[in-house]
Amino acid sequence: MIIEKKIKELGYELPEDSKPKAMYVPVKQLGNSLFIAGQVAFKDGKLMHPGKVGKDVTLEQAQDAARVCIINMLSAVKAYIGDLDKVKNVIKVQAFVSSAPGFDQQHIVINAASQLLYDVFGDVGRHARTAVGTSQLPMNASVEIEAIFEI
Amino acid sequence: MIIEKKIKELGYELPEDSKPKAMYVPVKQLGNSLFIAGQVAFKDGKLMHPGKVGKDVTLEQAQDAARVCIINMLSAVKAYIGDLDKVKNVIKVQAFVSSAPGFDQQHIVINAASQLLYDVFGDVGRHARTAVGTSQLPMNASVEIEAIFEI
Amino acid sequence: MIIEKKIKELGYELPEDSKPKAMYVPVKQLGNSLFIAGQVAFKDGKLMHPGKVGKDVTLEQAQDAARVCIINMLSAVKAYIGDLDKVKNVIKVQAFVSSAPGFDQQHIVINAASQLLYDVFGDVGRHARTAVGTSQLPMNASVEIEAIFEI
Repeated sequence: MIIEKKIKELGYELPEDSKPKAMYVPVKQLGNSLFIAGQVAFKDGKLMHPGKVGKDVTLEQAQDAARVCIINMLSAVKAYIGDLDKVKNVIKVQAFVSSAPGFDQQHIVINAASQLLYDVFGDVGRHARTAVGTSQLPMNASVEIEAIFEI
Repeated sequence: MIIEKKIKELGYELPEDSKPKAMYVPVKQLGNSLFIAGQVAFKDGKLMHPGKVGKDVTLEQAQDAARVCIINMLSAVKAYIGDLDKVKNVIKVQAFVSSAPGFDQQHIVINAASQLLYDVFGDVGRHARTAVGTSQLPMNASVEIEAIFEI
Repeated sequence: MIIEKKIKELGYELPEDSKPKAMYVPVKQLGNSLFIAGQVAFKDGKLMHPGKVGKDVTLEQAQDAARVCIINMLSAVKAYIGDLDKVKNVIKVQAFVSSAPGFDQQHIVINAASQLLYDVFGDVGRHARTAVGTSQLPMNASVEIEAIFEI
Protein backbone atom coordinates (compact mmCIF):
# COMPACT_ATOMS: atom_id res chain seq x y z
CA MET A 1 0.00 0.00 0.00
CA ILE A 2 2.94 2.32 -0.65
CA ILE A 3 1.06 4.37 -3.24
CA GLU A 4 -2.02 4.79 -1.05
CA LYS A 5 0.20 5.95 1.78
CA LYS A 6 1.79 8.45 -0.60
CA ILE A 7 -1.66 9.74 -1.61
CA LYS A 8 -2.51 10.32 2.05
CA GLU A 9 0.81 12.06 2.69
CA LEU A 10 -0.02 14.41 -0.18
CA GLY A 11 -3.19 15.31 1.69
CA TYR A 12 -5.76 13.45 -0.38
CA GLU A 13 -8.28 10.80 0.50
CA LEU A 14 -9.50 8.19 -1.95
CA PRO A 15 -13.30 8.34 -2.09
CA GLU A 16 -15.57 5.35 -2.38
CA ASP A 17 -15.61 4.34 -6.02
CA SER A 18 -18.86 5.50 -7.59
CA LYS A 19 -20.64 3.23 -10.02
CA PRO A 20 -21.53 4.54 -13.50
CA LYS A 21 -25.27 4.81 -13.95
CA ALA A 22 -25.26 3.43 -17.51
CA MET A 23 -24.02 0.42 -19.41
CA TYR A 24 -20.38 1.30 -19.18
CA VAL A 25 -17.66 0.62 -16.62
CA PRO A 26 -15.13 2.83 -14.83
CA VAL A 27 -12.18 0.65 -15.89
CA LYS A 28 -11.74 -1.85 -18.68
CA GLN A 29 -8.69 -4.02 -19.07
CA LEU A 30 -6.95 -4.94 -22.34
CA GLY A 31 -3.95 -7.14 -21.73
CA ASN A 32 -1.90 -5.29 -19.12
CA SER A 33 -3.43 -1.91 -19.83
CA LEU A 34 -6.33 -0.30 -18.02
CA PHE A 35 -8.56 2.11 -19.88
CA ILE A 36 -10.15 4.46 -17.38
CA ALA A 37 -13.41 6.25 -18.13
CA GLY A 38 -13.54 10.04 -18.19
CA GLN A 39 -13.59 11.42 -14.64
CA VAL A 40 -15.18 14.64 -13.48
CA ALA A 41 -14.59 16.42 -10.18
CA PHE A 42 -17.21 14.85 -7.91
CA LYS A 43 -16.27 15.07 -4.24
CA ASP A 44 -18.58 13.94 -1.45
CA GLY A 45 -21.40 13.68 -3.99
CA LYS A 46 -20.99 17.28 -5.21
CA LEU A 47 -19.45 18.44 -8.46
CA MET A 48 -16.59 20.80 -7.61
CA HIS A 49 -16.10 24.05 -9.57
CA PRO A 50 -18.74 23.63 -12.29
CA GLY A 51 -18.84 26.02 -15.24
CA LYS A 52 -16.45 27.44 -17.79
CA VAL A 53 -12.86 28.19 -16.94
CA GLY A 54 -12.04 31.82 -17.64
CA LYS A 55 -15.54 32.95 -16.67
CA ASP A 56 -17.26 30.95 -13.89
CA VAL A 57 -14.16 29.14 -12.73
CA THR A 58 -10.66 30.54 -12.09
CA LEU A 59 -7.46 28.88 -13.26
CA GLU A 60 -6.69 27.83 -9.68
CA GLN A 61 -10.17 26.37 -9.15
CA ALA A 62 -9.85 24.47 -12.42
CA GLN A 63 -6.50 23.06 -11.28
CA ASP A 64 -8.22 21.94 -8.10
CA ALA A 65 -10.94 20.28 -10.18
CA ALA A 66 -8.25 18.55 -12.26
CA ARG A 67 -6.68 17.13 -9.09
CA VAL A 68 -10.07 15.86 -7.90
CA CYS A 69 -10.52 14.12 -11.29
CA ILE A 70 -7.19 12.36 -10.76
CA ILE A 71 -8.10 11.30 -7.20
CA ASN A 72 -11.38 9.86 -8.54
CA MET A 73 -9.41 8.09 -11.27
CA LEU A 74 -7.08 6.55 -8.69
CA SER A 75 -10.10 5.47 -6.67
CA ALA A 76 -11.59 3.77 -9.74
CA VAL A 77 -8.29 2.01 -10.47
CA LYS A 78 -7.99 0.90 -6.84
CA ALA A 79 -11.51 -0.53 -6.94
CA TYR A 80 -10.52 -2.49 -10.04
CA ILE A 81 -7.06 -3.83 -9.13
CA GLY A 82 -7.23 -3.72 -5.32
CA ASP A 83 -3.81 -2.21 -4.71
CA LEU A 84 -2.43 0.85 -6.48
CA ASP A 85 1.09 -0.52 -6.07
CA LYS A 86 0.27 -2.73 -9.06
CA VAL A 87 0.35 0.32 -11.33
CA LYS A 88 3.52 0.08 -13.42
CA ASN A 89 3.11 3.15 -15.58
CA VAL A 90 0.77 5.97 -16.36
CA ILE A 91 0.71 5.81 -20.14
CA LYS A 92 -1.66 8.45 -21.42
CA VAL A 93 -3.84 11.25 -20.12
CA GLN A 94 -6.46 13.02 -22.18
CA ALA A 95 -8.05 16.06 -20.63
CA PHE A 96 -10.91 18.34 -21.61
CA VAL A 97 -11.34 21.78 -20.11
CA SER A 98 -14.67 23.57 -20.47
CA SER A 99 -13.48 26.97 -21.61
CA ALA A 100 -14.92 30.45 -21.86
CA PRO A 101 -14.22 32.17 -25.19
CA GLY A 102 -10.62 33.37 -25.21
CA PHE A 103 -9.37 31.08 -22.44
CA ASP A 104 -6.35 29.25 -23.81
CA GLN A 105 -4.49 28.02 -20.73
CA GLN A 106 -5.88 24.46 -20.77
CA HIS A 107 -2.34 23.08 -20.53
CA ILE A 108 -1.73 25.05 -17.31
CA VAL A 109 -4.95 23.68 -15.83
CA ILE A 110 -3.93 20.13 -16.67
CA ASN A 111 -0.36 20.58 -15.42
CA ALA A 112 -1.94 20.21 -11.96
CA ALA A 113 -3.19 16.74 -12.94
CA SER A 114 0.16 15.73 -14.44
CA GLN A 115 2.00 17.01 -11.38
CA LEU A 116 -0.24 15.02 -9.03
CA LEU A 117 0.31 11.82 -11.02
CA TYR A 118 4.05 12.47 -10.79
CA ASP A 119 3.84 13.22 -7.07
CA VAL A 120 1.97 9.96 -6.47
CA PHE A 121 3.83 7.58 -8.78
CA GLY A 122 7.19 9.26 -9.34
CA ASP A 123 8.89 8.88 -12.71
CA VAL A 124 6.57 6.10 -13.92
CA GLY A 125 3.71 8.55 -13.40
CA ARG A 126 4.96 10.67 -16.29
CA HIS A 127 2.66 10.19 -19.28
CA ALA A 128 1.93 11.28 -22.80
CA ARG A 129 -0.78 13.90 -22.62
CA THR A 130 -3.31 15.81 -24.63
CA ALA A 131 -5.13 18.79 -23.15
CA VAL A 132 -7.80 20.59 -25.14
CA GLY A 133 -10.53 23.08 -24.53
CA THR A 134 -14.15 22.44 -25.23
CA SER A 135 -17.38 24.41 -25.07
CA GLN A 136 -19.43 22.08 -22.85
CA LEU A 137 -18.88 19.12 -20.58
CA PRO A 138 -21.42 16.75 -19.02
CA MET A 139 -23.22 18.12 -15.95
CA ASN A 140 -21.49 21.46 -16.55
CA ALA A 141 -18.18 20.04 -15.29
CA SER A 142 -15.17 22.30 -15.82
CA VAL A 143 -12.68 19.47 -16.31
CA GLU A 144 -12.93 15.86 -17.52
CA ILE A 145 -9.92 13.53 -17.62
CA GLU A 146 -9.46 9.99 -18.92
CA ALA A 147 -6.31 7.87 -18.85
CA ILE A 148 -4.56 4.65 -19.74
CA PHE A 149 -2.51 2.92 -17.03
CA GLU A 150 -0.20 -0.06 -17.34
CA ILE A 151 -0.30 -2.71 -14.60
CA MET B 1 -23.14 -14.96 -36.96
CA ILE B 2 -24.74 -14.78 -33.51
CA ILE B 3 -23.96 -11.09 -33.06
CA GLU B 4 -25.32 -10.13 -36.48
CA LYS B 5 -28.51 -12.02 -35.71
CA LYS B 6 -28.74 -10.12 -32.42
CA ILE B 7 -28.32 -6.81 -34.27
CA LYS B 8 -31.22 -7.74 -36.56
CA GLU B 9 -33.39 -8.80 -33.63
CA LEU B 10 -32.78 -5.38 -32.10
CA GLY B 11 -34.23 -3.88 -35.29
CA TYR B 12 -31.04 -2.61 -36.93
CA GLU B 13 -29.47 -3.36 -40.28
CA LEU B 14 -25.74 -3.16 -40.91
CA PRO B 15 -25.10 -0.82 -43.84
CA GLU B 16 -22.51 -1.36 -46.51
CA ASP B 17 -19.20 -0.23 -45.08
CA SER B 18 -18.32 3.17 -46.53
CA LYS B 19 -14.74 3.90 -47.50
CA PRO B 20 -13.00 6.97 -46.07
CA LYS B 21 -12.22 9.51 -48.79
CA ALA B 22 -8.74 10.31 -47.47
CA MET B 23 -5.52 8.55 -46.52
CA TYR B 24 -6.89 6.94 -43.41
CA VAL B 25 -8.71 3.69 -42.74
CA PRO B 26 -11.91 2.82 -40.86
CA VAL B 27 -10.17 0.22 -38.69
CA LYS B 28 -6.53 -0.33 -37.79
CA GLN B 29 -5.28 -3.32 -35.86
CA LEU B 30 -2.60 -3.31 -33.16
CA GLY B 31 -2.05 -6.78 -31.77
CA ASN B 32 -5.49 -8.02 -30.81
CA SER B 33 -7.02 -4.57 -30.55
CA LEU B 34 -8.94 -2.74 -33.24
CA PHE B 35 -8.87 1.05 -33.30
CA ILE B 36 -12.00 2.28 -35.04
CA ALA B 37 -12.13 5.70 -36.70
CA GLY B 38 -14.64 8.28 -35.51
CA GLN B 39 -18.12 7.50 -36.85
CA VAL B 40 -20.87 9.96 -37.63
CA ALA B 41 -24.55 9.19 -38.19
CA PHE B 42 -24.68 8.55 -41.93
CA LYS B 43 -27.63 6.36 -42.93
CA ASP B 44 -28.48 5.59 -46.54
CA GLY B 45 -26.03 8.27 -47.64
CA LYS B 46 -27.65 10.97 -45.51
CA LEU B 47 -26.34 12.46 -42.27
CA MET B 48 -29.02 11.96 -39.61
CA HIS B 49 -29.88 14.78 -37.18
CA PRO B 50 -27.19 17.33 -38.08
CA GLY B 51 -26.68 20.40 -35.91
CA LYS B 52 -26.21 21.22 -32.27
CA VAL B 53 -27.92 19.24 -29.56
CA GLY B 54 -30.00 21.50 -27.35
CA LYS B 55 -30.90 23.79 -30.27
CA ASP B 56 -31.24 22.09 -33.68
CA VAL B 57 -31.38 18.55 -32.36
CA THR B 58 -33.34 17.15 -29.40
CA LEU B 59 -31.90 14.80 -26.81
CA GLU B 60 -33.90 11.92 -28.31
CA GLN B 61 -32.71 12.70 -31.85
CA ALA B 62 -29.13 12.86 -30.61
CA GLN B 63 -29.55 9.47 -28.94
CA ASP B 64 -30.80 8.16 -32.26
CA ALA B 65 -27.73 9.65 -33.99
CA ALA B 66 -25.51 7.97 -31.36
CA ARG B 67 -27.09 4.61 -32.15
CA VAL B 68 -26.55 5.12 -35.89
CA CYS B 69 -22.86 5.88 -35.15
CA ILE B 70 -22.60 2.55 -33.32
CA ILE B 71 -24.27 0.65 -36.15
CA ASN B 72 -21.81 2.23 -38.60
CA MET B 73 -18.98 1.26 -36.26
CA LEU B 74 -20.17 -2.35 -36.18
CA SER B 75 -20.40 -2.30 -39.97
CA ALA B 76 -16.79 -1.08 -40.20
CA VAL B 77 -15.63 -3.77 -37.79
CA LYS B 78 -17.54 -6.45 -39.70
CA ALA B 79 -15.93 -5.33 -42.96
CA TYR B 80 -12.54 -5.67 -41.27
CA ILE B 81 -12.85 -8.98 -39.41
CA GLY B 82 -15.62 -10.67 -41.37
CA ASP B 83 -17.64 -11.93 -38.43
CA LEU B 84 -18.65 -9.83 -35.43
CA ASP B 85 -18.61 -12.96 -33.26
CA LYS B 86 -14.83 -12.49 -33.19
CA VAL B 87 -15.27 -9.41 -30.99
CA LYS B 88 -14.14 -10.38 -27.48
CA ASN B 89 -14.57 -7.06 -25.71
CA VAL B 90 -15.53 -3.47 -26.27
CA ILE B 91 -12.69 -1.70 -24.51
CA LYS B 92 -13.19 2.02 -24.90
CA VAL B 93 -15.65 4.47 -26.37
CA GLN B 94 -14.94 8.15 -26.87
CA ALA B 95 -17.86 10.30 -27.90
CA PHE B 96 -18.21 13.91 -28.95
CA VAL B 97 -21.56 15.69 -28.88
CA SER B 98 -21.95 18.96 -30.79
CA SER B 99 -23.64 21.06 -28.15
CA ALA B 100 -25.57 24.30 -28.02
CA PRO B 101 -24.44 26.66 -25.25
CA GLY B 102 -25.80 25.40 -21.95
CA PHE B 103 -26.48 21.82 -23.08
CA ASP B 104 -24.75 19.56 -20.58
CA GLN B 105 -26.44 16.18 -21.02
CA GLN B 106 -23.77 14.65 -23.28
CA HIS B 107 -23.60 11.61 -21.03
CA ILE B 108 -27.33 10.98 -21.46
CA VAL B 109 -26.94 11.20 -25.25
CA ILE B 110 -24.11 8.69 -25.19
CA ASN B 111 -25.89 6.33 -22.80
CA ALA B 112 -27.86 5.30 -25.89
CA ALA B 113 -24.64 4.21 -27.58
CA SER B 114 -23.41 2.37 -24.47
CA GLN B 115 -26.78 0.66 -24.07
CA LEU B 116 -26.76 -0.51 -27.70
CA LEU B 117 -23.26 -1.98 -27.34
CA TYR B 118 -24.47 -3.79 -24.23
CA ASP B 119 -27.63 -5.00 -25.99
CA VAL B 120 -25.54 -6.36 -28.87
CA PHE B 121 -22.57 -7.87 -27.04
CA GLY B 122 -23.87 -8.42 -23.50
CA ASP B 123 -21.45 -8.00 -20.60
CA VAL B 124 -18.33 -7.91 -22.79
CA GLY B 125 -19.91 -4.92 -24.53
CA ARG B 126 -19.45 -2.82 -21.39
CA HIS B 127 -16.62 -0.37 -21.92
CA ALA B 128 -14.68 2.49 -20.40
CA ARG B 129 -16.15 5.68 -21.79
CA THR B 130 -15.57 9.38 -22.20
CA ALA B 131 -18.36 11.66 -23.40
CA VAL B 132 -17.71 15.34 -23.96
CA GLY B 133 -19.39 18.24 -25.64
CA THR B 134 -17.86 20.24 -28.41
CA SER B 135 -18.77 23.31 -30.43
CA GLN B 136 -18.46 21.87 -33.94
CA LEU B 137 -18.18 18.49 -35.61
CA PRO B 138 -17.29 17.62 -39.21
CA MET B 139 -20.12 18.06 -41.70
CA ASN B 140 -22.21 19.56 -38.91
CA ALA B 141 -22.72 16.12 -37.35
CA SER B 142 -24.36 16.14 -33.93
CA VAL B 143 -22.50 13.09 -32.64
CA GLU B 144 -19.15 11.44 -33.43
CA ILE B 145 -18.00 8.23 -31.74
CA GLU B 146 -14.75 6.26 -31.89
CA ALA B 147 -13.89 3.03 -30.11
CA ILE B 148 -11.34 0.34 -29.33
CA PHE B 149 -12.46 -3.28 -29.60
CA GLU B 150 -10.59 -6.43 -28.57
CA ILE B 151 -10.76 -9.43 -30.89
CA MET C 1 17.37 6.50 -42.26
CA ILE C 2 15.01 5.85 -45.19
CA ILE C 3 12.07 7.62 -43.57
CA GLU C 4 14.09 10.70 -42.65
CA LYS C 5 15.32 10.91 -46.22
CA LYS C 6 11.72 10.68 -47.39
CA ILE C 7 10.72 13.52 -45.04
CA LYS C 8 13.47 15.69 -46.51
CA GLU C 9 12.44 14.81 -50.08
CA LEU C 10 8.93 15.96 -49.21
CA GLY C 11 10.45 19.34 -48.30
CA TYR C 12 10.27 19.14 -44.51
CA GLU C 13 12.91 19.38 -41.84
CA LEU C 14 12.65 17.69 -38.47
CA PRO C 15 13.06 20.29 -35.72
CA GLU C 16 14.92 19.75 -32.50
CA ASP C 17 12.59 17.91 -30.18
CA SER C 18 11.19 20.33 -27.63
CA LYS C 19 10.81 19.23 -24.02
CA PRO C 20 7.43 19.57 -22.30
CA LYS C 21 7.51 22.12 -19.50
CA ALA C 22 5.46 19.99 -17.09
CA MET C 23 5.45 16.54 -15.57
CA TYR C 24 4.53 14.75 -18.73
CA VAL C 25 6.53 13.31 -21.60
CA PRO C 26 6.29 13.66 -25.39
CA VAL C 27 6.21 9.89 -25.94
CA LYS C 28 5.32 7.01 -23.64
CA GLN C 29 5.75 3.38 -24.58
CA LEU C 30 3.36 0.53 -23.77
CA GLY C 31 4.63 -2.75 -25.15
CA ASN C 32 5.32 -2.07 -28.81
CA SER C 33 3.07 0.98 -29.03
CA LEU C 34 4.08 4.59 -28.62
CA PHE C 35 1.57 7.07 -27.27
CA ILE C 36 2.49 10.52 -28.52
CA ALA C 37 1.39 13.66 -26.66
CA GLY C 38 -0.80 16.22 -28.43
CA GLN C 39 1.26 18.34 -30.81
CA VAL C 40 0.61 21.93 -31.82
CA ALA C 41 2.13 23.80 -34.74
CA PHE C 42 5.28 25.28 -33.21
CA LYS C 43 7.95 26.02 -35.81
CA ASP C 44 11.22 27.75 -34.98
CA GLY C 45 9.80 28.66 -31.58
CA LYS C 46 6.70 30.33 -33.01
CA LEU C 47 3.15 28.98 -33.06
CA MET C 48 2.02 28.89 -36.70
CA HIS C 49 -1.49 30.03 -37.66
CA PRO C 50 -3.01 30.62 -34.21
CA GLY C 51 -6.73 31.29 -33.87
CA LYS C 52 -9.99 29.77 -35.00
CA VAL C 53 -10.33 28.12 -38.37
CA GLY C 54 -13.09 29.73 -40.40
CA LYS C 55 -12.40 33.16 -38.92
CA ASP C 56 -8.73 33.93 -38.07
CA VAL C 57 -7.28 31.03 -40.01
CA THR C 58 -8.14 29.79 -43.50
CA LEU C 59 -8.66 26.15 -44.41
CA GLU C 60 -5.30 26.14 -46.23
CA GLN C 61 -3.48 27.69 -43.27
CA ALA C 62 -5.06 25.14 -40.95
CA GLN C 63 -3.89 22.34 -43.25
CA ASP C 64 -0.42 23.81 -43.05
CA ALA C 65 -0.67 23.87 -39.23
CA ALA C 66 -1.79 20.22 -39.30
CA ARG C 67 1.30 19.30 -41.30
CA VAL C 68 3.55 21.13 -38.82
CA CYS C 69 1.91 19.16 -35.99
CA ILE C 70 2.78 15.92 -37.79
CA ILE C 71 6.39 17.03 -38.37
CA ASN C 72 6.68 17.85 -34.65
CA MET C 73 5.20 14.44 -33.86
CA LEU C 74 7.77 12.72 -36.05
CA SER C 75 10.50 14.72 -34.35
CA ALA C 76 9.26 13.57 -30.93
CA VAL C 77 9.14 9.95 -32.10
CA LYS C 78 12.64 10.22 -33.57
CA ALA C 79 13.96 11.63 -30.29
CA TYR C 80 12.43 8.63 -28.51
CA ILE C 81 13.37 5.73 -30.80
CA GLY C 82 16.38 7.17 -32.61
CA ASP C 83 15.44 6.07 -36.11
CA LEU C 84 12.04 6.56 -37.70
CA ASP C 85 12.58 3.43 -39.78
CA LYS C 86 11.58 1.52 -36.63
CA VAL C 87 7.99 2.73 -37.04
CA LYS C 88 5.95 -0.27 -38.19
CA ASN C 89 2.51 1.31 -38.30
CA VAL C 90 0.65 4.48 -37.62
CA ILE C 91 -2.29 3.16 -35.60
CA LYS C 92 -4.42 6.08 -34.58
CA VAL C 93 -4.64 9.83 -35.03
CA GLN C 94 -6.88 12.08 -32.98
CA ALA C 95 -7.12 15.67 -34.10
CA PHE C 96 -8.74 18.77 -32.65
CA VAL C 97 -9.45 21.83 -34.78
CA SER C 98 -10.22 25.13 -33.06
CA SER C 99 -13.26 26.19 -35.02
CA ALA C 100 -15.23 29.36 -35.56
CA PRO C 101 -19.01 28.91 -35.25
CA GLY C 102 -20.30 27.28 -38.42
CA PHE C 103 -16.97 25.84 -39.58
CA ASP C 104 -17.52 22.13 -40.18
CA GLN C 105 -14.62 21.09 -42.43
CA GLN C 106 -12.40 19.68 -39.68
CA HIS C 107 -11.99 16.47 -41.67
CA ILE C 108 -10.66 18.42 -44.66
CA VAL C 109 -8.13 20.19 -42.41
CA ILE C 110 -6.95 16.88 -40.99
CA ASN C 111 -6.78 15.19 -44.38
CA ALA C 112 -3.54 17.15 -44.79
CA ALA C 113 -2.13 15.39 -41.73
CA SER C 114 -3.31 11.97 -42.89
CA GLN C 115 -1.90 12.58 -46.36
CA LEU C 116 1.50 13.55 -44.94
CA LEU C 117 1.65 10.42 -42.79
CA TYR C 118 0.84 8.41 -45.90
CA ASP C 119 3.44 10.27 -47.96
CA VAL C 120 6.09 9.59 -45.32
CA PHE C 121 5.31 6.01 -44.35
CA GLY C 122 3.35 4.66 -47.31
CA ASP C 123 0.58 2.13 -46.67
CA VAL C 124 1.60 1.46 -43.06
CA GLY C 125 1.07 5.20 -42.47
CA ARG C 126 -2.68 4.78 -42.96
CA HIS C 127 -4.42 5.03 -39.61
CA ALA C 128 -7.75 5.07 -37.86
CA ARG C 129 -8.67 8.67 -37.27
CA THR C 130 -10.97 10.97 -35.38
CA ALA C 131 -11.20 14.65 -36.28
CA VAL C 132 -13.38 16.97 -34.26
CA GLY C 133 -13.86 20.67 -33.81
CA THR C 134 -13.47 22.47 -30.54
CA SER C 135 -13.94 25.99 -29.26
CA GLN C 136 -10.48 26.58 -27.75
CA LEU C 137 -7.05 25.02 -27.81
CA PRO C 138 -4.02 25.69 -25.60
CA MET C 139 -2.06 28.83 -26.50
CA ASN C 140 -4.74 29.65 -29.07
CA ALA C 141 -3.45 26.90 -31.38
CA SER C 142 -5.67 26.18 -34.39
CA VAL C 143 -4.84 22.48 -34.55
CA GLU C 144 -3.71 19.86 -32.02
CA ILE C 145 -2.94 16.26 -32.99
CA GLU C 146 -2.03 13.19 -30.96
CA ALA C 147 -1.28 9.68 -32.22
CA ILE C 148 -0.44 6.09 -31.46
CA PHE C 149 2.39 4.47 -33.44
CA GLU C 150 3.49 0.84 -33.49
CA ILE C 151 7.20 0.09 -33.48
